[in-house]
Amino acid sequence: MSQTEEPVAVVALEISPRTKPSNYPEPFASRMAGREKRPLADFFGLSNFGVNLTRLIPGAGSALRHAHATQDEFLYILEGHPVLVTDQGETALAPGMCSGFKAGTGNGHQLVNRTNSNVLYLEIGDRSAGDSVSYPDDDLKAIFGSEGKWQFMHKDGTPY
Amino acid sequence: MSQTEEPVAVVALEISPRTKPSNYPEPFASRMAGREKRPLADFFGLSNFGVNLTRLIPGAGSALRHAHATQDEFLYILEGHPVLVTDQGETALAPGMCSGFKAGTGNGHQLVNRTNSNVLYLEIGDRSAGDSVSYPDDDLKAIFGSEGKWQFMHKDGTPY
Repeated sequence: MSQTEEPVAVVALEISPRTKPSNYPEPFASRMAGREKRPLADFFGLSNFGVNLTRLIPGAGSALRHAHATQDEFLYILEGHPVLVTDQGETALAPGMCSGFKAGTGNGHQLVNRTNSNVLYLEIGDRSAGDSVSYPDDDLKAIFGSEGKWQFMHKDGTPY
Repeated sequence: MSQTEEPVAVVALEISPRTKPSNYPEPFASRMAGREKRPLADFFGLSNFGVNLTRLIPGAGSALRHAHATQDEFLYILEGHPVLVTDQGETALAPGMCSGFKAGTGNGHQLVNRTNSNVLYLEIGDRSAGDSVSYPDDDLKAIFGSEGKWQFMHKDGTPY
């Protein structure tokens, strides 16, 4: 075993948060203030899916409301009481509740923390190729480019 | 929207557990008594990865110690204090701790509940094709067959 080997297991909250708060262009990136993501699965070198431990302070949201074309997504609430916004309206969540978002449905989802306490949850998504993301409430769409980066554009295709 | 639409979100512990406790052949299946898995992501129709909410009663184990060839795996402890067994030895876990197991390393892992209280955790694994599983401590290997089922055999290839 090498001297630099990673630990077998860690306290999730001790993994460093992402330093870049959002990939969105403005004015959307600023809306993500108050969201902090810890990339747990990346820490262990996993590449087939991501697991983030994400904290939302009061007033913060998980993302713009969005839907993936090829990547499934799943949420499990650990602490706090966010609202889940989808095409079905608003659903009140609580610790121990979960939700899943199958790729390709076009039904956008978003968590919003309207309480005075933090929300802590696990978000899981796979890395299926050819993904794109639609944003039903915003003039934005995203395509995962061949160079391995998200490309954001207006709904008419013009770049930000 | 159809009348039979699934709920947007659910209490994870209210999802029904799997009725078949293990796919292992005997004598290994009986060792999995005391393990109960709730397939959370399947409930929402996700197909790119699985998320199980798994409970281990005192004395139970998560699985035989095993390693996947192509599928990554990740664990997050919600309740209780299991021991994680790997090639590095034994690691004591606690709620809020996590571990990840990259595909292809051959380093087998297993959770064991040696306490007098239940253990509850989330286990996540993807569905990458061509997977096989090695079991360093047992005369067993598994290959995911072309017909979509796990095939179990002795290490020398003879069937169980």
